[in-house]
Amino acid sequence: MATLEDLGVSAFINIVGAFIFLLLFAVLRIQPINDRVYFPKLYIAKKRTHDHRGARRAINLNLCTYFKFLSWVPGALRMNQTELIHHAGLDSVVYLRIYTLGLKIFLPIMVVALLVLIPVNVSGGTLLNLKKDVVFSDIDKLSISNVSPGSNRFFIHLLMAYLFTFWTCFMLYKEYSNVAFMRLHFLASQKRCADQFTVIVRNIPRVSSHTTSETVEEFFRRNHPDHFLGQQAVYNANRYAKLVKRKERLQNWLDYYQLKFERHPDKRPTGRTGCFGFCGGEVDQIDYYRARISELDKRMASERQKVLNDPKAIMPVSFVTFDSRWGAAVCAQTQQSKNPTQWLTDWAPEPRDVYWENLAIPFFSLSIRRFLISIAVFALVFFYMIPIAFVQSLANLEGIEKVAPFVRPIIEVKVVKSFLQGFLPGLALKLFLYILPSVLMIMSKVEGYVSLSSLERRTASKYYYFMLVNVFLGSIIAGTAFEQLYSFFHDPPSQIPRTIGVAVPMKATFFMTYIMVDGWAGIANEILRVKPLVIYHLKNMFIVKTERDRERAMDPRNIQLGENLPSLQLYFLLGLVYAVVTPILLPFIIVFYAFAFLVYRHQIINVYNQEYESAAAFWPQVHSRIIASLLISHVTLFGLLSTMKAAYSTPLLIFLPLLTIWFHKYCKSRFEPAFRKYPLEEAMEKDRMEHASEPSLNLKTYLANAYLHPIFHMFEQEEQKEETTLEVRIDKSQQQQQQHHARSSDTQYEERNTETHYYHEERSSSQYQYQYQHEETHMRSEQSPPHFVYHHEIQP
Amino acid sequence: MATLEDLGVSAFINIVGAFIFLLLFAVLRIQPINDRVYFPKLYIAKKRTHDHRGARRAINLNLCTYFKFLSWVPGALRMNQTELIHHAGLDSVVYLRIYTLGLKIFLPIMVVALLVLIPVNVSGGTLLNLKKDVVFSDIDKLSISNVSPGSNRFFIHLLMAYLFTFWTCFMLYKEYSNVAFMRLHFLASQKRCADQFTVIVRNIPRVSSHTTSETVEEFFRRNHPDHFLGQQAVYNANRYAKLVKRKERLQNWLDYYQLKFERHPDKRPTGRTGCFGFCGGEVDQIDYYRARISELDKRMASERQKVLNDPKAIMPVSFVTFDSRWGAAVCAQTQQSKNPTQWLTDWAPEPRDVYWENLAIPFFSLSIRRFLISIAVFALVFFYMIPIAFVQSLANLEGIEKVAPFVRPIIEVKVVKSFLQGFLPGLALKLFLYILPSVLMIMSKVEGYVSLSSLERRTASKYYYFMLVNVFLGSIIAGTAFEQLYSFFHDPPSQIPRTIGVAVPMKATFFMTYIMVDGWAGIANEILRVKPLVIYHLKNMFIVKTERDRERAMDPRNIQLGENLPSLQLYFLLGLVYAVVTPILLPFIIVFYAFAFLVYRHQIINVYNQEYESAAAFWPQVHSRIIASLLISHVTLFGLLSTMKAAYSTPLLIFLPLLTIWFHKYCKSRFEPAFRKYPLEEAMEKDRMEHASEPSLNLKTYLANAYLHPIFHMFEQEEQKEETTLEVRIDKSQQQQQQHHARSSDTQYEERNTETHYYHEERSSSQYQYQYQHEETHMRSEQSPPHFVYHHEIQP
Repeated sequence: MATLEDLGVSAFINIVGAFIFLLLFAVLRIQPINDRVYFPKLYIAKKRTHDHRGARRAINLNLCTYFKFLSWVPGALRMNQTELIHHAGLDSVVYLRIYTLGLKIFLPIMVVALLVLIPVNVSGGTLLNLKKDVVFSDIDKLSISNVSPGSNRFFIHLLMAYLFTFWTCFMLYKEYSNVAFMRLHFLASQKRCADQFTVIVRNIPRVSSHTTSETVEEFFRRNHPDHFLGQQAVYNANRYAKLVKRKERLQNWLDYYQLKFERHPDKRPTGRTGCFGFCGGEVDQIDYYRARISELDKRMASERQKVLNDPKAIMPVSFVTFDSRWGAAVCAQTQQSKNPTQWLTDWAPEPRDVYWENLAIPFFSLSIRRFLISIAVFALVFFYMIPIAFVQSLANLEGIEKVAPFVRPIIEVKVVKSFLQGFLPGLALKLFLYILPSVLMIMSKVEGYVSLSSLERRTASKYYYFMLVNVFLGSIIAGTAFEQLYSFFHDPPSQIPRTIGVAVPMKATFFMTYIMVDGWAGIANEILRVKPLVIYHLKNMFIVKTERDRERAMDPRNIQLGENLPSLQLYFLLGLVYAVVTPILLPFIIVFYAFAFLVYRHQIINVYNQEYESAAAFWPQVHSRIIASLLISHVTLFGLLSTMKAAYSTPLLIFLPLLTIWFHKYCKSRFEPAFRKYPLEEAMEKDRMEHASEPSLNLKTYLANAYLHPIFHMFEQEEQKEETTLEVRIDKSQQQQQQHHARSSDTQYEERNTETHYYHEERSSSQYQYQYQHEETHMRSEQSPPHFVYHHEIQP
Repeated sequence: MATLEDLGVSAFINIVGAFIFLLLFAVLRIQPINDRVYFPKLYIAKKRTHDHRGARRAINLNLCTYFKFLSWVPGALRMNQTELIHHAGLDSVVYLRIYTLGLKIFLPIMVVALLVLIPVNVSGGTLLNLKKDVVFSDIDKLSISNVSPGSNRFFIHLLMAYLFTFWTCFMLYKEYSNVAFMRLHFLASQKRCADQFTVIVRNIPRVSSHTTSETVEEFFRRNHPDHFLGQQAVYNANRYAKLVKRKERLQNWLDYYQLKFERHPDKRPTGRTGCFGFCGGEVDQIDYYRARISELDKRMASERQKVLNDPKAIMPVSFVTFDSRWGAAVCAQTQQSKNPTQWLTDWAPEPRDVYWENLAIPFFSLSIRRFLISIAVFALVFFYMIPIAFVQSLANLEGIEKVAPFVRPIIEVKVVKSFLQGFLPGLALKLFLYILPSVLMIMSKVEGYVSLSSLERRTASKYYYFMLVNVFLGSIIAGTAFEQLYSFFHDPPSQIPRTIGVAVPMKATFFMTYIMVDGWAGIANEILRVKPLVIYHLKNMFIVKTERDRERAMDPRNIQLGENLPSLQLYFLLGLVYAVVTPILLPFIIVFYAFAFLVYRHQIINVYNQEYESAAAFWPQVHSRIIASLLISHVTLFGLLSTMKAAYSTPLLIFLPLLTIWFHKYCKSRFEPAFRKYPLEEAMEKDRMEHASEPSLNLKTYLANAYLHPIFHMFEQEEQKEETTLEVRIDKSQQQQQQHHARSSDTQYEERNTETHYYHEERSSSQYQYQYQHEETHMRSEQSPPHFVYHHEIQP
């Protein structure tokens, strides 16, 4: 157990670290050159344009701005909740409420715990004999471990456990009720959305002699005669989407070489084609990439024709639209067919929220996938050390020397060698932890969920299990998760809470340090945005030519619920477990919540751009996890007290988890339907209001373009290509060409050869760019490759 | 471990026992006097009338019928499935399918196990060295214990475990698919039923200035404008129902004394009124009961007025009817209100299936009740020995002597004393086990389910847990459930499967005996119907005066799913656990299934009268329990093999439970919706067909009387009392009165005083009887006291 002094040193280091990050942030954010890194959301929301603060001056020279390094804080607090919902959506606002919930739960708990439990613990028991001259040198003195075994003072801890649990449940109930209300209000006050009228239908059976569209049409016309409006078939454009991605990559290289050539017009960039540029014949890079893009264009055109004309490209999935919210609500909530594996209906996610790749997975396959992934997650959580240890055993110095003998001279230098020997084993683990969220996301995708929001929620829940086992339990019971699993099977169940309970107070210092490193410094790092900053400037240097390119180079990112929810939930767990045991940990958590709240509020206002809106669909998960934390805290306290010979007080604890479970069940049935279903009352009310205010509304026209995939717009554009007006950029590139003509006469012949080609390319690339921009507002293309195309079939 | 000889003795005793029961049955069933005990269903179905077989002759004198003591068997097989569904309903037919499923699963398993496993076990391993002269004297030799530890022959057992699991799953899949199809077909081919158009709405919010009916009316007219037809409010007639029950009891006494007087007209029956007839003034019993009934009648009349006129008597529950099955299906499956605890809609159970008492429980109370009951069930399963031990400690001879000193002389007799000392301790346990199903049923009622079928299913599931823990685990791990619970907490989890696994083969003989006693002899007892036989004859002797009374005295009972499903599931568990371990147990189970199938088929055809039809709603439970049995069998085999040092084969077992779980999940999503929801496709199809065949059908009139509670009919009758024609019975009682007048002149004054009274009583009682009969066809009044009255409010 560390002394307060050790902890002070650690706190000092971390506070200094966080301070440096904040200072750096204060300096960097006021540089106009970084404006797009630190305020991308304002650009996207059109609250800031490219000439803001004078883009010509790259560096801020106003010295007094440097001194106000916390000047972002008032800015982070400026919007009220309604404005913030309007600015960033309900998801972001409710996400921020998790932090305020943390504050609301833990501030009163901290006050009570510090006032009551610390004196009880320090005095080793009776409040009356409290010595004034006690030295607060040891964390242990402040924790429950200081109370002598068998003491009656454990009744005070027991009372506190009840008090804290009731308080937490009370706040949870209030918050759930608030969030549910906000969600319903948000949905009710939302302007007309296509997803309110649309139901996604999966596993449409194949009927011979009928096309899928005909089958759907017939089925819904028969079973929902009064409300069925139309349907939009989904085309399988997987291959086409791949080609688009490839073209984008080639286009980036072409841009890079063109810019290089523009800057050094005396030398045309050349390179080798094969083997990462090491072998193959030397070619002119600009010509080479142009040729490859043009070839790709041809393939894309033929693929496009194939998608549009081949009846086999239609997937057994459809977006069915209804003439009222009531009709859609009814269809989404009822079973359609006798065979419950066919005609599965569900709410259509928002158009930007659809994960197209998973739309066509059949029911049987889904059931296998989910099962296999749950086994895989279990294996990942408990056995992830095995492959890492394997990689570590391979990636030692001898191994590297064997594979690549030429690096031996460098490795054999003593300084390098010792550095590598210390660094390599950790590298595999670091790398693993870095890519873990992506791996979990891929797993969730394999599970077959059809919306990005649900994918993110699934990822969050997988990540939570990982953190719970490997961070929380892993730190408390020293040893790998695999060893824990072994002991879970081989120790009596009554022993496990004891093992954990005894270890919990001893690990308090570790978790305080963890909170400071991961919480305080980590959050300060979040606001600094090192990675997007570097990438933005790299892109700016090598690819960006126009203002539009610059906009594309911005990477606002989003809240990253998949990673952030689990760590937040971990803090709740730590706070609840330690509230009774070592209450001195609570201030650290409070500081984290307050600081993180400010930072994330700032980021949500200025940086993040949510891709979709799920209307706080993640809240039930947050609620359940906090309840789970409560239960874990009860079990640990039970284990701890049972080793403390507190025979009278311990059995009284048994009611606490029971009451908590009941509370959870009640909340679940009371509030969860608001997140899963859409009440008919609500739907009917909105239908009526709309009908009263816009009696002549033509829903068919409104819904016609709703679920059209961006790629389909691309198709249309391809066909209208002749009429597209060329953009500024093309003028610029023409200028460029003229410069090129004037300055390099030796490559003139080649140039003329590719002239027509080049124009064509430019045109299509500008068109592509237009498309991309369109896509940007709809959905981030990196995360959700557009794989299916809508063929719109609203019926007359 | 018992030898085969011991087992043979036990088998002999039980077979003789079963044989005696069957013989008794053969004798008793052909006595015309018992006809209503052994063929009540035929009377109810009007396939047999009271003059069948000549009711005058009480005893069958045709000797040759006595020799055909198995003559009921062909009769039990005579109907085919379709006829049986028509005769007894789908529930009964699907219940019988559980037995055939048992046969289908275990017959092939038995053949394979006996052919493969027995030789392997007997030879202690290799099939090739199989000695011909081995003596089958020891059950142990036939079980897996005979194989030497560490032997490779365990691979054969492993293979068999896989084979048996796959076979079981295959049969389960086929059966689930069959039953789901049968259910859908049954529902589709059912004639028009009120419950198809009706939805039960609970937790209707109270709106001030509106009555409940108005609120309901307004809500559904607004949110289901196209399909809402009308609603039937529910009145709280709890007190009235109690009065009805009390009157029925008094009436029985009155009947008894009247009959007594009729048989011995020289002596009017008298008795004392207070303290169980020990103290109080002596009165004429007939007059006394008549007076009390007349007093009760007045109270009933005033209560009736109260129910009909008091607006507070209307419950926040309503049966809402729609103009189509589609409309009802939509309303039942969707969420209505923003607040998910209000306007809860669900399928209305069949009118006969409604459990009226539970209709008005509010949501919050429901959530507490379910939680408390689940704790209570846990306590009951694990701690039921505690109160019994307490009662046992009280109910010793000294205690009895202290409380009732006057019995001391009898108790002190040596024979009596030793008998009581041996008998008393067991008495509490026996009594507890006898009333257990009723206790569990009461618990289920407290949980607040609104239909009798769901109550029965809940009872079955509680009883299953009790059997699993106290019969299966309790027999394997010797000791009370409480001790088991202790060891579950204090032994390592890996130890528990071992403890069970090791004990399983040793307990094979016990379970064989159990199957013979509980299965074979128990089933033979079921066909004999001792209790209904005795009660029928008692009633016949003391109360029955008319043919209608005789009909009321018949007690056909029903299948008693609450008790029978769990014991059936226990046999599946035994079969699956022992299939690999001690396959010699399988023939006993096969015999049980075959014999029980015949018996229950006979009873279903001739005796049981199902009160309601749930269309096999219990099947998902049966399926899950068999899956659970499979998993338990895997765990025990795993534990057993791990003690057998079969290090190579044991780990391969791990996939078996995983695959089983996946299979279960798949089946659940594939078939369970057929049991929980009503597909819109189906509803629409039936609506159309009906519309085509009966275009002028007036649904309002059809539904008008659908959910009227029998008590409401009573109200109507009360009002029409003046017009009711008096029945035969009244004439009879008038004759009686005349006789009375003629013979006893000393009571003449009294008689005259009660004359008018008496007429009134007779009239109302005959009217009551008519009502009772009506009730009988609707619902058994003992089990479902009519507590709510419908006020019919179909709107114009």
